Amino acid sequence: MTDAISVITAKRDGRELTDRQIDWVIDAFTRGEVADEQMSALAMAIVFNGLTRAETARWTAAMIATGQRMDLSALRRPTVDKHSTGGVGDKITLPLAPLVAACGAAVPQLSGRGLGHTGGTLDKLESIPGWRAELTGEEILAILVDPEIGAVVCAAGAGLAPADKKLYALRDVTGTVESVPLLASSIMSKKIAEGAGALVLDVKVGAGAFMKTLAGARELATVMVELGADAGMHTVALLTAMDSPLGYTAGNALEVAESVEVLAGGGPADVVALTLTLAEEMLGAAGLYDADPAAALRDGRAMDRWRAMVRAQGGDPVAPLPRARESEVVAATGSGVVTGLDAMAVGIAARLLGAGRLRQGEPVQAGAGVRWHVRPGDTVRAGQPLFTLYTDDPDRFGPARAALAGACALGGTHRAGPLVIERIGPVPASVGS
Amino acid sequence: MTDAISVITAKRDGRELTDRQIDWVIDAFTRGEVADEQMSALAMAIVFNGLTRAETARWTAAMIATGQRMDLSALRRPTVDKHSTGGVGDKITLPLAPLVAACGAAVPQLSGRGLGHTGGTLDKLESIPGWRAELTGEEILAILVDPEIGAVVCAAGAGLAPADKKLYALRDVTGTVESVPLLASSIMSKKIAEGAGALVLDVKVGAGAFMKTLAGARELATVMVELGADAGMHTVALLTAMDSPLGYTAGNALEVAESVEVLAGGGPADVVALTLTLAEEMLGAAGLYDADPAAALRDGRAMDRWRAMVRAQGGDPVAPLPRARESEVVAATGSGVVTGLDAMAVGIAARLLGAGRLRQGEPVQAGAGVRWHVRPGDTVRAGQPLFTLYTDDPDRFGPARAALAGACALGGTHRAGPLVIERIGPVPASVGS
Repeated sequence: MTDAISVITAKRDGRELTDRQIDWVIDAFTRGEVADEQMSALAMAIVFNGLTRAETARWTAAMIATGQRMDLSALRRPTVDKHSTGGVGDKITLPLAPLVAACGAAVPQLSGRGLGHTGGTLDKLESIPGWRAELTGEEILAILVDPEIGAVVCAAGAGLAPADKKLYALRDVTGTVESVPLLASSIMSKKIAEGAGALVLDVKVGAGAFMKTLAGARELATVMVELGADAGMHTVALLTAMDSPLGYTAGNALEVAESVEVLAGGGPADVVALTLTLAEEMLGAAGLYDADPAAALRDGRAMDRWRAMVRAQGGDPVAPLPRARESEVVAATGSGVVTGLDAMAVGIAARLLGAGRLRQGEPVQAGAGVRWHVRPGDTVRAGQPLFTLYTDDPDRFGPARAALAGACALGGTHRAGPLVIERIGPVPASVGS
Repeated sequence: MTDAISVITAKRDGRELTDRQIDWVIDAFTRGEVADEQMSALAMAIVFNGLTRAETARWTAAMIATGQRMDLSALRRPTVDKHSTGGVGDKITLPLAPLVAACGAAVPQLSGRGLGHTGGTLDKLESIPGWRAELTGEEILAILVDPEIGAVVCAAGAGLAPADKKLYALRDVTGTVESVPLLASSIMSKKIAEGAGALVLDVKVGAGAFMKTLAGARELATVMVELGADAGMHTVALLTAMDSPLGYTAGNALEVAESVEVLAGGGPADVVALTLTLAEEMLGAAGLYDADPAAALRDGRAMDRWRAMVRAQGGDPVAPLPRARESEVVAATGSGVVTGLDAMAVGIAARLLGAGRLRQGEPVQAGAGVRWHVRPGDTVRAGQPLFTLYTDDPDRFGPARAALAGACALGGTHRAGPLVIERIGPVPASVGS
């Protein structure tokens, strides 16, 4: 007979938890038999003493076992999912999901809302008039099976890994978020429960990301790839740069508009490049080696899918997007080459303007956000516009300006780093087998 | 503006907490603003990263500040308290408090009830017909000021260090008891709040004690002596052996009877020796260098105090003590020299017979317990009685016998160790100054 104190003290004292202890503690916590104060003590012991690969896999499986798993076998098509660990201006899911669907894979993309300095995919899509995030399991399957759609971006139902939902909320208020095995099992429990056959992870690295160092990002990516492999899901991770924000906008409707530019064959070069790189990885992981996502962007097939996808969830893809009532320009006070654009500062400013939230459940403004007019490497002269700030509430300009003070660093020269830093996972089957 | 997460993450990341963070987190936890799950995560971070001497002192002071402090200045007599970290058969407080009072000090001894394998002083005294543990602050002072009494053993009111009461209950269920600074601050916050001028700590070491190793006991004692000194209380610690139980009995009325034997000038040699050693330390710490506790035991003054002390709390010191309805003898199955008597096993057996409890609030039997007939160094022949078990409920004999299997180790020779292993604290002022 196991009990919470013996599980906590085992991990506290550096011992490996047994499968039985892990299964019991996750289930009992979900049922409320293990109290929050016991689980947070265990989580803190894990922050210090870690989990082995075997423990992490079992922990993930135990969280999945507390809920349902989606069954996508009826689709009779390769299924592939994508997850980003969160960046500023990261709207990639919006063009990516319809693009990959246009190339033949089904894309079940269960997403979340924004918290802190990063925006949420659902918040962005909800700026489209009529679009709704909440779908039933039947609605999700009907959209995925439709040969004209095949991609769905919606809220994860409460039935998937409820243990993770409860544990994440607890870790969020107890200083126990920062643990690689707990982070990895949180992400992967939901992704495995979603039932896709393959998964591509975009692990952000840098000042604007959760993982500030390459070593940390590499560790997180490796553990997630292992968890995916252990669960029989073809999993690949790309480590991508998040020192500067992606594209030229951060904010809900602002990012939808930028995504539509990409789907129309234009858009910011970095957003296009990352969208195509991730699409190739997803299609490779799904076994669709002959697909040509660049062509699908050029010839309008991706845009057709986008419109069908938005309509399937009640949205009007051609209606004008909401705009903020007020805007203000922040101009350069000096001249030089832009050596850095602080993604964290931009993300915080966008949140302060009303695009994001600090606490779950707070409303967001559809039109609020930040547009930056320069990128690292550009030359700037004093007086030139650096940022345009958007909000419905002009009281928010002051705090946002303060957050952006010094966010655009000027200097003599700029050396650009790669956008995709490293790839972790099995080589594509078309090459390796 | 500080908050729970920043305090938790500071300690998690190995930083020293500021005075302000400590004051805030203890106060906010006591008020319920810091949630149990946050405090348990902080406690686990402290288990791993510890507290500095300055942090521990501030933590202790912050816990004291959540409640009242007793003011004993009206007594116009030296006041001295004693605390034991808990052992099996440890009835020393019962003869010690009246003995020290008979020698001229006032002894405010606020005590607890038993939990786990160690008995509680209040549980023992409550086996005396009529005796009551709950006194008001006025009643405590009236007994202490009485020249014929001067000693009181009673329950600590809820008003002393309520933060500690709440934190201890939380640590008890979250695997965070085992932290020297948390243990030390828990004990010392109550003892400092009690307001005595001096304190003698009996830190138990060995298989039957919370601290199994000399190094651990030494660390705990050192931190407590420092905390006492920082609070202006003359504090001394003795490290004493707790491999074998003290005396010949464990159980409530059984230990009262053994204590009365000591007060009558007899009793087990180890109980007499430890009582006199602790009395000398207490009287020295109180500045009463000329007192002669051995004489006070011999000439009946300590017994007179005991009777007055029991009467002052409603007890009848000459009424017969309760006896268990049933008893059973456990006999030796082999022959040899007793090389060890397992204090932990004896303590567990006494609890299983009804003398103690596993959860706070459970009732105890006054007459239940264990009497052992041999001590390490004695020679035993097969068939000779080793233990007598007492309980009102004969179903309890089986589990108690099982707990005692192998508790009395027999061998060829026994080498006795010292009862008092080490002394930590300032040298007595009569010698050192």
